[in-house]
Amino acid sequence: MDRVDIAIIGSGPAGVSAAITAKTRNRSVVLFGTSALSPKLEKAHKILNYAGLPEVSGAELAERLREHLRVMDIPVTEEQATAVYAMGKYFAVETASGMTEASAVILATGVFGGKPIPGEEEFLGRGVSTCATCDGNFYKGKTIAVLGFGAEAPKETEYLASLVAKVYYFPAAGRELEDPPANVETIAAKTAAISGEGKAERVETDAGEYAVDGVFVLRDAVPADRLVPGLKMDGPHAEVDLRMRTNLPGCFACGDLAGTPYQYIKAAGQGNVAALSAAEYLASLG
Amino acid sequence: MDRVDIAIIGSGPAGVSAAITAKTRNRSVVLFGTSALSPKLEKAHKILNYAGLPEVSGAELAERLREHLRVMDIPVTEEQATAVYAMGKYFAVETASGMTEASAVILATGVFGGKPIPGEEEFLGRGVSTCATCDGNFYKGKTIAVLGFGAEAPKETEYLASLVAKVYYFPAAGRELEDPPANVETIAAKTAAISGEGKAERVETDAGEYAVDGVFVLRDAVPADRLVPGLKMDGPHAEVDLRMRTNLPGCFACGDLAGTPYQYIKAAGQGNVAALSAAEYLASLG
Repeated sequence: MDRVDIAIIGSGPAGVSAAITAKTRNRSVVLFGTSALSPKLEKAHKILNYAGLPEVSGAELAERLREHLRVMDIPVTEEQATAVYAMGKYFAVETASGMTEASAVILATGVFGGKPIPGEEEFLGRGVSTCATCDGNFYKGKTIAVLGFGAEAPKETEYLASLVAKVYYFPAAGRELEDPPANVETIAAKTAAISGEGKAERVETDAGEYAVDGVFVLRDAVPADRLVPGLKMDGPHAEVDLRMRTNLPGCFACGDLAGTPYQYIKAAGQGNVAALSAAEYLASLG
Repeated sequence: MDRVDIAIIGSGPAGVSAAITAKTRNRSVVLFGTSALSPKLEKAHKILNYAGLPEVSGAELAERLREHLRVMDIPVTEEQATAVYAMGKYFAVETASGMTEASAVILATGVFGGKPIPGEEEFLGRGVSTCATCDGNFYKGKTIAVLGFGAEAPKETEYLASLVAKVYYFPAAGRELEDPPANVETIAAKTAAISGEGKAERVETDAGEYAVDGVFVLRDAVPADRLVPGLKMDGPHAEVDLRMRTNLPGCFACGDLAGTPYQYIKAAGQGNVAALSAAEYLASLG
């Protein structure tokens, strides 16, 4: 497998800026994310303080960032990174379609907004999955629950419904299915916990319990230390220094994940710094 | 005297970004600098990695920043800050024309590139001046030396020549006078030191010594801890944390002054952070 110089996880302003600067330093990059770049950015009404672009809308800024990526010939993978493993001399980035090896990693995932529900972290990997594409096949012919928090949840639920026997779907506001398949039962109850004996067996709600073989919790982001085992956090943020270094050598963080304020121009600036620090790290490897 | 909320020292991308964000937070700002914004930026050929503005020239980026200031109705003072004093509850910013009081200060001066020559710091205020407008009048009818390093040095030297009896002018490359006044003697020698007994009395060069009553050392920037007495430095940079706080409460630093890498988008991002930290500081004052 070819090893890329820098894997960038996340395609918001921080990740895009990191990719652009890494490319200007003649480093090979893989930018994990979507060409929509960032759902949050796309929805931003008017941004007053992105210096040089007065009163730009979020959609306009996103289009300018896409144009910048096009000019520099940087594709976006259209795939989500589901795990990043520090292997010592390199990093392994896992997606639904396989592994990518990278000498350095820049985390630009944004910050995990929600609070995990009871049982979600406890049963992760034991009946709880965060990735329909990765784990859907394990539940062929079974009964699952889907907790749909993220923007991709409706689409992913339809995919899961094509594999499994039965889906209990618990959508967050705005994540309802327009035209649910016959084997999807949408339940408008508040999910309170995931429970079971040694593995996820039930979804507990304010309207009763649902027995299942597995639970998919589909969020826009997962806590970064779940994505990157061993990453040192400071509350919801990766702990970084002024050069955007994390506690893991060769792993850098930028944007919202690197701390407040949550601002686009700050994210772009930190992406630039992270990329230059990564380039410096790569040079030190010789 | 009216007190402004935030005085911003320096009009490069960091200072401009700080001013824009401070204004969006409804804080009154004074932006010390020139409408040329930054000589370094203006001369930049092509900037590849200012995210959202692919392949922008320095002159174009400067014009976009000026436009952003216009849209937000933020004037630039056209005056250089010559000193910033922490007065406890506020800051006093000194310029040639007087004092400005500010509740918080953001330093975006850039980094001092040169190395002071021997005697320059020792005799500062004792025959050595860095500000023609501030101190020129003290040398009426006298003989002075001008060490012209900065972009403004030729213009300032002509001004000084209109006041004093005689000027020995030691220009750096590119700082020569096109049409020197009769009382200016341009000397193409390498200045080695400023010397004297308790005050500046001589300029020593590789081509002999010149006896003078005072020496003006005109640079684009002065070391920040000379501009702001008490500011803690880390080499040529102000020591800052991730929120751009310096050791002086209410005083923030950003851009090149806050450390490497020297990059426009990084400077703009840090200006944004500094402004939000300043706004937070002001709120804490009640």
